[in-house]
Amino acid sequence: MSDATHTIVIFGASGDLTKRKLIPALYHLYAQERLPDNTIIVGYSRSALAHDEFRGRLREWVEPSSEFNVETWDRFAQTIFYSAGNLDNTDDLKRMDAFVADKEQGTANRLYYLAVAPEFYEGALNSLNALGLAQQDNGWRRVVVEKPFGTNLETARALNQVIHKGFSEDQVYRIDHYLGKETVQNLLFFRFANAIYEPIWNRSYIDHVQITVSESVDVEQRGDYYDKAGVLRDMFQNHLMQLLALVAMEPPISLQADALRNEKVKVLRAVRPIKVTDTVRAQYEGYLEARGVDPGSQTPTYAAIKLFIDNWRWQDVPFYLRSGKALAGKTSEIVVQFRRPPSLFFNLGRGKQLEPNVLSLCIQPDEGIHFRFLTKVPNEVSEVQAVDMDFHYRSSFKDTALPDAYERLLLDAINGDAALFTREDEIERSWELIDGVLSGWNKPQAQPMQSYPHGTWGPEEAEMLLADDGRVWRINCGDHR
Amino acid sequence: MSDATHTIVIFGASGDLTKRKLIPALYHLYAQERLPDNTIIVGYSRSALAHDEFRGRLREWVEPSSEFNVETWDRFAQTIFYSAGNLDNTDDLKRMDAFVADKEQGTANRLYYLAVAPEFYEGALNSLNALGLAQQDNGWRRVVVEKPFGTNLETARALNQVIHKGFSEDQVYRIDHYLGKETVQNLLFFRFANAIYEPIWNRSYIDHVQITVSESVDVEQRGDYYDKAGVLRDMFQNHLMQLLALVAMEPPISLQADALRNEKVKVLRAVRPIKVTDTVRAQYEGYLEARGVDPGSQTPTYAAIKLFIDNWRWQDVPFYLRSGKALAGKTSEIVVQFRRPPSLFFNLGRGKQLEPNVLSLCIQPDEGIHFRFLTKVPNEVSEVQAVDMDFHYRSSFKDTALPDAYERLLLDAINGDAALFTREDEIERSWELIDGVLSGWNKPQAQPMQSYPHGTWGPEEAEMLLADDGRVWRINCGDHR
Repeated sequence: MSDATHTIVIFGASGDLTKRKLIPALYHLYAQERLPDNTIIVGYSRSALAHDEFRGRLREWVEPSSEFNVETWDRFAQTIFYSAGNLDNTDDLKRMDAFVADKEQGTANRLYYLAVAPEFYEGALNSLNALGLAQQDNGWRRVVVEKPFGTNLETARALNQVIHKGFSEDQVYRIDHYLGKETVQNLLFFRFANAIYEPIWNRSYIDHVQITVSESVDVEQRGDYYDKAGVLRDMFQNHLMQLLALVAMEPPISLQADALRNEKVKVLRAVRPIKVTDTVRAQYEGYLEARGVDPGSQTPTYAAIKLFIDNWRWQDVPFYLRSGKALAGKTSEIVVQFRRPPSLFFNLGRGKQLEPNVLSLCIQPDEGIHFRFLTKVPNEVSEVQAVDMDFHYRSSFKDTALPDAYERLLLDAINGDAALFTREDEIERSWELIDGVLSGWNKPQAQPMQSYPHGTWGPEEAEMLLADDGRVWRINCGDHR
Repeated sequence: MSDATHTIVIFGASGDLTKRKLIPALYHLYAQERLPDNTIIVGYSRSALAHDEFRGRLREWVEPSSEFNVETWDRFAQTIFYSAGNLDNTDDLKRMDAFVADKEQGTANRLYYLAVAPEFYEGALNSLNALGLAQQDNGWRRVVVEKPFGTNLETARALNQVIHKGFSEDQVYRIDHYLGKETVQNLLFFRFANAIYEPIWNRSYIDHVQITVSESVDVEQRGDYYDKAGVLRDMFQNHLMQLLALVAMEPPISLQADALRNEKVKVLRAVRPIKVTDTVRAQYEGYLEARGVDPGSQTPTYAAIKLFIDNWRWQDVPFYLRSGKALAGKTSEIVVQFRRPPSLFFNLGRGKQLEPNVLSLCIQPDEGIHFRFLTKVPNEVSEVQAVDMDFHYRSSFKDTALPDAYERLLLDAINGDAALFTREDEIERSWELIDGVLSGWNKPQAQPMQSYPHGTWGPEEAEMLLADDGRVWRINCGDHR
C-alpha cells in the first residue's frame, strides 16, 4: 500500500537489550501486523556475521515466547539483516548506509536505535551526524537513545549538544521504558478520564504521596556499573521522577507529545530544591564486598527523599520517594493518602482517629488499583473497619496479556509519537534535582551513609523520615501488604 | 448485676411478624447475650394459650435457624410468657399489666411492641394511655409502632395525636425496618467516615441519583391489602424516602437520634413539590385479575418519580426514584452518577463522550459497593474502557452474617437509641410529599395509568422519564448488570 520503507537500524545488535527486548518486541509487533509494510531491521555490531547467522542468534530469544510460531518467525526473519562495523568508523557506517539504501524503496524512513553502552553514544552520534545520516531529505530520520542519558546535568547537556549537531529535538526519542508500561500510561487515564479524582487531587484533600520502586535483587554481577551510578542515577533520575511528574502534573491540553511534556517539565520545575536533611542514603550489608564494588564506596544502594512542589495544587503536601536494591520485595507503587475526615461520631476509642482513605496505583508486578476506605462493621453500632476495593488488569483484561513496554515505545517511535519519550528540558531538569542531592551528600555536614540488612525495607532512618511527620511508609500492592 | 427488669410486651403475639421476625431476632440477641439481664417477653393476643403452648408455637420458627441450640432455646423459652386479651379491653390489659408487674424486680422498664394490623393501633394506644401504662414512674415505657404509619398525612397526624395522649415523642419508636439494614446504616458511614466523597457529593460533581427498590414477586395473596395501599404508600413513603434522606442529607453533628433526624427532616423539607408530569404510574398486566383486587382498580403497582431538592448542595440535580412489583429482578440500590469529565484527549470516535463514573450502593440482596471507572485498554494508544472496583460484605466480613434488621432495631429500642426510627415530623413530611403525588394522580389531567408485562423493568414511560433528560436507568448490583 504505502510507497515507503521503514528501516530500524539497531546499533549494538549483539547486545543484551537487542536480544532480550528489541527483537522479541519487534517480533510480536510483526506477528500482530502492527509494523508498517516494508519494515526492515538492520543489526549493526562489530562481529562479522552472515544475515542468517544473526537471525539464528536472535531466534533463540523469541522461541520461548508463547506467541512463537515457526512460519511467522521465518517470514519475520527475512526482514532482518546484518551489517558489521565499528560505531565510530565512518567507512563501516557508510557501508551500512549503502546496504540500507539498496533495500529502500520509495520514501526511506529510518529509526536509529542506540542499544549500546552509554560511552559509545557520543562517537556513534558524531559519526551519524558527520555522515549526514540525520538529514531528512527523503523520509524521516529518528534516533532512539537508551538510558542512562548522562550521569549528571553537565554530561546530559553535553550529550544533548552532540545530538543536536545533526538531529533536531523532534527527531530524538529518549527512552525511559517505565513510560511504556501500561500501568504508567494508565496514570494519565485514571486521573483524566474519571471525573471524581481531579477535584480532590490537591492539597485540600491529599495528605501526602508516596512513591516506592523497590527491587529484591542486589547488584549481583553488575557491581562495576552500579557502583559508578548508585540508586539516584539508576532509579530516581528517570523512573521515580517520571512517576512523580505523572501523578503531580496539571492536566495537559492533549496527549500530544509536547502538550504532555510541557506539563511534566512544568511540575518538575516547581519542585523545591531538595534539602539534604530530607534525604536518607544507605547501602545494604555486604554491598562493599560485591564484585566490582570499591571497598570504600560511598555509592548508595537505597535512598529515600522527601520533596515538595511549590505550586497552587501541591504547596505543603510532602512527596516521599524511595527506591533500593536488596529490599524485602519487588514492587513499584504510588500511594496517595488522603486527609482524614473529621472524626465525628464514630466509636474509635480514646485518642484514635479515623483511618485515612488510601489510593494505591500499582505499577508492577501486581498491576492494578486498590482503594482503601472505611465501612461499618456489621453488628456493631458505630465501629468502622478499613476494607479494600480493587481492580486488577489480570482479571479485567483476561484475554490481553500486558504488552512489554518496548512494543509500545518502538511503535510510537516509528509512528512519530514522542509523548512517552523524555524531552531535553525534562531530562535536564530531572538531573538538576538529582545533582542537588548528590552534591549535598558530598558536603562534610551531610548525614552519614546508613546500612540495612538484605531483605528488609531499608534503614531505620527512612522510617524516621516519615515518623517525624507522623506518617508511615505503605506497601499496598500485591502480596506485600 | 443491674437491678432492673426489662419487659417486652408484644401485642399481636400470634401474628406473622412475631413469629417470623421478632422472636427469631430476640432469640439471636439472647444467644449472643446482647439482651439486658432480666429481660422477659410477654406475648399478648386473643387466643387463650398456656405459656408453654405459646413457647412451643414460637420454637418452630426459630428451629430452622443455623444458630438454633436446644439448651439455649430452653433457657430462652423460660423468659417468654403469655397473657391473653383484646387490645381495646381495659380489663384484659390490666390483667397483663398485673402479670408483668408481678415478674418485675427493681426498676421496671417496658417496651410495648405493636405487632398488630394498623387498624388496631388506635384502640391499643388509647387503652395503654387510659390505663397510664405510658407513665414512667418506675423505669421507662416505650412503644414500637410498625409500618404502615397512617395512609396519608391526615391519618398519620391523627395517629401521632393518639400516641401523644400518653407517650411523649421520645418514647415512640416508629419502625421502618429498612433503617435497620447494615447496608442502609453503612450509607452514613460510607459518606462520613471517608474523606474523599463529601467534597464531590454535590451538584458540582454529581449528574443525578437513582434509587431503585424492585420486587420480582407480584401481590400474590395480598391483593386485598395491597390494592388499598399501592406502591407509593407501600414503598415510597417509607423505604425510598428514607434512602433519599440518607443519601442526600447534610452531615449531622452526631449520630444521636435527634441530630440525625434533624438532618433527615431538613433535606425532606427541601424537596420541591413533585410535579405530576415528573411521575409515572403503572400496573403489571394481570394485576386487576389478582384475588382481592378491585377489577376497576386505579392502584399503581409501579411508580417512577423525578424530584429535586432545593438546597445549596442539590439544586438542579435530579433524583429518580422507582419501585414496583412483578419486575425483572429483586434489588435495592442507589446509583450515584457523576458528571462526565471533559472529553479531552481520548480516542472515542465521533460524537461519543467519556462514560461517567458511577457509584452503586447495593442495599440488597447483593450487599456491597461498586464503583465504575475508566481505564486504559492495554495495547491501545488511547482507548478507554469502563471497569468495576467492588466491595462485598460477604467477602470482606466472611465470619459475620449480616444480622436481620429487627435485631438491631429491637436492641436500639431497648437501649433507648431512636436514631434508626422515624420521628413524627419526618414521617409527616414524607406523607406530605406522597400525598402531593397521589392527589395529582386523582386530577382529570393526570397522565393515565400505564401497564407493563410481568418480569420486565416497568413501563416504557418510565424509560422515557429519563430518556427525555438524556439518561438511562441503571441496575449495577448483583446479577442484574
